[in-house]
Amino acid sequence: MLNPADAAFAATLAALLPGGAVRAPEPRYLEEPRGRWRGQGGVLVLPRSVAEVQAVVRACAEARVGIVPWGGGTGLVGGQVLPDGPAPVILSLERMAAVRHVWPGENALEVEAGATLAAVQEAAAGAGRLFPLSLASEGTARIGGVLATNAGGIGVLRYGNARDLCLGVEAVLADGSVIGGLKRLRKDNTGYDLRNLLIGAEGSLGIITAATLRMVPRPAVNVTAMLVVESPAAALRLLTMCQGRVPGMVSAFELIKRTGFEFLAAKMPEVGCPFPVAPDWCVLLELGLPSVFDAEEVMAGLYAEADEAGLVQDGVIAASEAQRQGLWRIRESIPEANRLVGAVSSHDISLPLSAVPEFIARADAALAGMGAVRVNCFGHLGDGNLHYNVFPAEGRDKAGYDAAAVMACVHDLVDAMGGSVSAEHGVGRLKVGDLERYGDAGKLAAMRAVKAALDPLGIMNPGAVLR
Amino acid sequence: MLNPADAAFAATLAALLPGGAVRAPEPRYLEEPRGRWRGQGGVLVLPRSVAEVQAVVRACAEARVGIVPWGGGTGLVGGQVLPDGPAPVILSLERMAAVRHVWPGENALEVEAGATLAAVQEAAAGAGRLFPLSLASEGTARIGGVLATNAGGIGVLRYGNARDLCLGVEAVLADGSVIGGLKRLRKDNTGYDLRNLLIGAEGSLGIITAATLRMVPRPAVNVTAMLVVESPAAALRLLTMCQGRVPGMVSAFELIKRTGFEFLAAKMPEVGCPFPVAPDWCVLLELGLPSVFDAEEVMAGLYAEADEAGLVQDGVIAASEAQRQGLWRIRESIPEANRLVGAVSSHDISLPLSAVPEFIARADAALAGMGAVRVNCFGHLGDGNLHYNVFPAEGRDKAGYDAAAVMACVHDLVDAMGGSVSAEHGVGRLKVGDLERYGDAGKLAAMRAVKAALDPLGIMNPGAVLR
Repeated sequence: MLNPADAAFAATLAALLPGGAVRAPEPRYLEEPRGRWRGQGGVLVLPRSVAEVQAVVRACAEARVGIVPWGGGTGLVGGQVLPDGPAPVILSLERMAAVRHVWPGENALEVEAGATLAAVQEAAAGAGRLFPLSLASEGTARIGGVLATNAGGIGVLRYGNARDLCLGVEAVLADGSVIGGLKRLRKDNTGYDLRNLLIGAEGSLGIITAATLRMVPRPAVNVTAMLVVESPAAALRLLTMCQGRVPGMVSAFELIKRTGFEFLAAKMPEVGCPFPVAPDWCVLLELGLPSVFDAEEVMAGLYAEADEAGLVQDGVIAASEAQRQGLWRIRESIPEANRLVGAVSSHDISLPLSAVPEFIARADAALAGMGAVRVNCFGHLGDGNLHYNVFPAEGRDKAGYDAAAVMACVHDLVDAMGGSVSAEHGVGRLKVGDLERYGDAGKLAAMRAVKAALDPLGIMNPGAVLR
Repeated sequence: MLNPADAAFAATLAALLPGGAVRAPEPRYLEEPRGRWRGQGGVLVLPRSVAEVQAVVRACAEARVGIVPWGGGTGLVGGQVLPDGPAPVILSLERMAAVRHVWPGENALEVEAGATLAAVQEAAAGAGRLFPLSLASEGTARIGGVLATNAGGIGVLRYGNARDLCLGVEAVLADGSVIGGLKRLRKDNTGYDLRNLLIGAEGSLGIITAATLRMVPRPAVNVTAMLVVESPAAALRLLTMCQGRVPGMVSAFELIKRTGFEFLAAKMPEVGCPFPVAPDWCVLLELGLPSVFDAEEVMAGLYAEADEAGLVQDGVIAASEAQRQGLWRIRESIPEANRLVGAVSSHDISLPLSAVPEFIARADAALAGMGAVRVNCFGHLGDGNLHYNVFPAEGRDKAGYDAAAVMACVHDLVDAMGGSVSAEHGVGRLKVGDLERYGDAGKLAAMRAVKAALDPLGIMNPGAVLR
């Protein structure tokens, strides 16, 4: 059983760290974006170095006080707030925010965990390179949290998720020891892959304090189109066609449903729609091409080929940077429009790519049996990752629905079709029950064994990922 | 302490499995390619299903008998042979060799662990796709071993190593439980990354029994050149130029030193050299391009640009498939020429890319202080992965050198410069001492904790990776 981070323990920590590094947490450290939980925290600590992180962790281990690692606070599954049990130490990495080194010739950089994702992107851009991870929250999210949650976002199709962009991590484990893994090697087969074990563990196995990351060459030209397709199945055929024609150069392939345009028209009419009538389905396609290509010619050729194959019904190709941003604004405004409409239940799911059309049809049918709803199904189709969100029928209130039953209906189907009930947001506290319900029994037992081995006192982000 | 797999235990296993699945191992199961060790094994078991693997593992756990998982036997660090201690069970996956499913539209396939790498490549080719992992031993190496050792090879620069090409694994752990991880999802953030923990663990944490793997679109055209460069530093500048011009399409970037041509001329003169005088340094560059490109034009443009920048002194671009294969034959024959010359010590190392030129200069200088030697330094420069192999001076015998001192000299320098002493071959039994000497102390302690948690009896590949 853990002990609370009380005033006496705060004094213990204050004696270990320089002045100003220990204080009561402001409200923002106890909130999360969707307002599902309110965290509690007796003490906020703001270390400036790995040695200070180690000192805090050792003191917590000694006193059996829980630690909630805190990055930018943008997680969507409650991993950053502890709502009940003994009050924890909130350990924020925000004062460890340096971009330490950039090696353009190696396409590598080294950053402290508290650097924001935007700062990392800027450092890469400053070196003429691209750090291709991109999220709505990139101005606030910090790289330690981005790695701890293995964040995804828009660029995964081409460049992979946070895991794929990380060459090495430095982390403090529950006993205060440090794993020094800041190598920047493309190949290193010396022992177990603790880097990937820490990435995605959501702070429950250790605290990531710094990382070496990959960069990629910047595409010379980005050419963007919004293409009307008949169905999700047609969208997938279009994706296969694009990847065959320009493999490795499809930067984004996002699905948009008519419901998205309807919500935008109702709540954010200034965003607009490039078509006279909102299409049932369309995709936002972006190619990032090197200078050896004539980008417009490539996109026009793709369009002609897709048209000839009957895969697209209509489409617009951005002819200027302003038009390109206008198309992206549609995609990026959908989550806010959703928020303004108010979902009964939201789902961050993934499926085997070829199962996506059948899933959409079956989920829509299953939900129809639970009463009138509207479904906004959109997202990273190229990754098999859908944000399948369920809303009240026009004029009805979401309070009139059984949100838990809706979620179970969607997640049961995802599980039955070989999918994941958390594609990119993680488990946090929201999906601990889902993990128990849908997770492989052998994997869960092995996860518990690993947790017990690396954090025998259970002080690292208590209650996140595993109960 | 473990017990030997004796006749009585063989009878126990034989009672659990169908006829013919338990027998005494033939000599080939006790050999490894470099002949450093001779394995011992009381019993060979050849299961046909996961359930049979589980039965064997449970019996071994019950009797405290060690298990050496056996794939194709091609590993270069002795992970597949146990030379001393109680004789283990050798568990070969060769009868579980099915390619179960291929999903071309998803660029995914599912295979059993005993499928050879070549069989996986063929299955992908049959679906019009590419499985891009490529090794000299691909006809023999089996996918379970390829994953267990996180194998690398020629295609890593563009497509990543075995880890990067794996979507999921099924594995039997030391207690006989199964981790069922055969999902084929591009995004799945539900809990700890046990897949990557098992990949690269060399059978010391569990036995991989099946896997889901990625495929990629086949490039429409491969265009290959051998380009003479002034130095490794110039080669790296050329690489940066190529990756900027055709990002994501550089399929291979291999460094070759004059010594390699000299060894070929002496031992395999039929291989030839495309230049009138063997160059000090050259690179084998391959681009794999989609059909929207005029491949020869792209390569010619690259050459012209490199020439203008002073990065290449000479070069040949393959004008036919036969010429292309001729260039590859040079690269691929170098290991055999090395074997015929006979190395004092061979090193599979990696370095931060920008440190490679300095490493080569410093290592050559350090070795010069140990007596006259010849160094053949070649390999996957694009990955920072060199095969830095040391040979006796002309006319001298390798017995006259202190091989251990040579290896220590090279490895000490690699470690001091932030590199890895095992880039792609793994730890096996050969580099257990290197891991202890050069490994991060925190990482080693955490590795031991994970090993103790998942294999408390120490039956899984005893003595591999960790002592």
